[in-house]
Amino acid sequence: MGLLVVGSLGLDDVSTPFHKIENALGGAATYISIAASYFSAPIYLVGVVGEDFPKEYIHLLESKYIDIEGLQIIKGGSTFRWAGKYHYDLNIRDTLLTELNVFKDFNPIVPEKYQKASFVCLGNIDPVLQMRVLDQMVAPKCVVCDTMNYWIEGQRNELIKLLKKVNILIINDSETRLLANEPNLIKGAKSILEMGPEILIIKKGEHGALLISKDSIFSAPAYPLESIYDPTGAGDTFAGGFIGYLHKTHDLSFDNMKRAVIYGSTMASFCVEQFSTKGLEDIDYLRVNDRYREFLNLSKCDEL
Amino acid sequence: MGLLVVGSLGLDDVSTPFHKIENALGGAATYISIAASYFSAPIYLVGVVGEDFPKEYIHLLESKYIDIEGLQIIKGGSTFRWAGKYHYDLNIRDTLLTELNVFKDFNPIVPEKYQKASFVCLGNIDPVLQMRVLDQMVAPKCVVCDTMNYWIEGQRNELIKLLKKVNILIINDSETRLLANEPNLIKGAKSILEMGPEILIIKKGEHGALLISKDSIFSAPAYPLESIYDPTGAGDTFAGGFIGYLHKTHDLSFDNMKRAVIYGSTMASFCVEQFSTKGLEDIDYLRVNDRYREFLNLSKCDEL
Repeated sequence: MGLLVVGSLGLDDVSTPFHKIENALGGAATYISIAASYFSAPIYLVGVVGEDFPKEYIHLLESKYIDIEGLQIIKGGSTFRWAGKYHYDLNIRDTLLTELNVFKDFNPIVPEKYQKASFVCLGNIDPVLQMRVLDQMVAPKCVVCDTMNYWIEGQRNELIKLLKKVNILIINDSETRLLANEPNLIKGAKSILEMGPEILIIKKGEHGALLISKDSIFSAPAYPLESIYDPTGAGDTFAGGFIGYLHKTHDLSFDNMKRAVIYGSTMASFCVEQFSTKGLEDIDYLRVNDRYREFLNLSKCDEL
Repeated sequence: MGLLVVGSLGLDDVSTPFHKIENALGGAATYISIAASYFSAPIYLVGVVGEDFPKEYIHLLESKYIDIEGLQIIKGGSTFRWAGKYHYDLNIRDTLLTELNVFKDFNPIVPEKYQKASFVCLGNIDPVLQMRVLDQMVAPKCVVCDTMNYWIEGQRNELIKLLKKVNILIINDSETRLLANEPNLIKGAKSILEMGPEILIIKKGEHGALLISKDSIFSAPAYPLESIYDPTGAGDTFAGGFIGYLHKTHDLSFDNMKRAVIYGSTMASFCVEQFSTKGLEDIDYLRVNDRYREFLNLSKCDEL
């Protein structure tokens, strides 16, 4: 039992055409673990922050029963910072600032009680660090991994090595094309499945997601939201909801992964309705399930 | 009874990274009527070509039982020509040439026996001409209309007037944002439904399509094709399959329109597998239905 989440925790300055916030709680591991917390426990967090990381954010994680024994707080250090600006079309954003700070020397140490966790979610960090985490684990049942174009281009060999130990890779459509070096998405997906993972999930933002195995494909819609305020963290929240549901059910069949994808999309839809992690803070499992059912209806069609 | 199709017929020069063809059969009305021909009859075609339009293309249309009494063949005139080049990523294309030729002075005349058609599909032409067609019809039960950014920007007032007489508008996602002047797709869709149509269908290419009414939304996946050779005509083929199925069933319920969207997507998936209309020429209704069922499975998910 147990779901280990590894990745960044940070302070975000985000501006959209609607609003502007500073020093907001951010980072992949933050969104993943909070989203997953709605499904199962225990959730083990491995990450690093500086001494400037606000106590209230620590309390928020604890209030979601996230175990923070693996969270390193570096004395005198500054937390990872990211600043971004979204355009009127929220699909387009500019990164204004990335300060690695304590993240630069991050060495993920997995506490002993985390090492037997059956599920692992590797947030988007250097594949060298992701591998270092896996090396400390005893025998995880399911390893989910996120990555990005930066690592696909800059750390390709390390990433390829890592993929042999990954069960489920979650990336977006352009990253799929880049990693596979193939413009056709489905051909690209199949060649990535040759690299190690049994399952590839392709996130397509406002167009939903694809779940792909060697034999099957499932196409999940996106929730037709009229009020998107801040897309930050949507992809990580998707991953958190996805693995949270898998961890809850301990069922790795393709049919159950379909449901996990819909739960991931459900959590992401709550995330983007408010700034930072706000949209994930005040929901309950009943609301999650209501929206999950709406999601299912969205693509339901009787053959006749 | 009867489905009237109005729009362009043309000769296309298309190049992709895989192949190059010249003088291929093209045009919106061509794709729409051939796709619709797999579902129902009679299909009435209104359009214009020059004397250079190859006889074999006329024979092809006739072989699909498409009524061409309304096809004007202008003596000494040249057929509408389009040339385009697709990039390695087939989602991107450059238009190399557009020669209107006989299309420049096109005045659509609806033969008397067409005027009582119950279904009308207005291919993407000047909204002034689309209106002129509707003015000649007696009492169509269902009017489907396609348009594009060129008309949304250049003929906005005429288009808005036309939309009051349209039941179902089919456009893509960027056209939705442009017509509604709203970056959020769902908000944009709702404001377009205020302009007249009861139904809006948003085509999203490789991401599928959305069917939207005031009360309901249906999200249809795209078929995960590994071999896309030529995307030309996919959108028109979608419209043809969609209205062909509606015309066959005469059922305008939202549930039946969902099925029509899947049939439209099915036809489009055949279209892009080969050049020009080739992918639509050698199929039969059995193959169409097999792929239709594969499409349904693609987004099928049991609630548990």
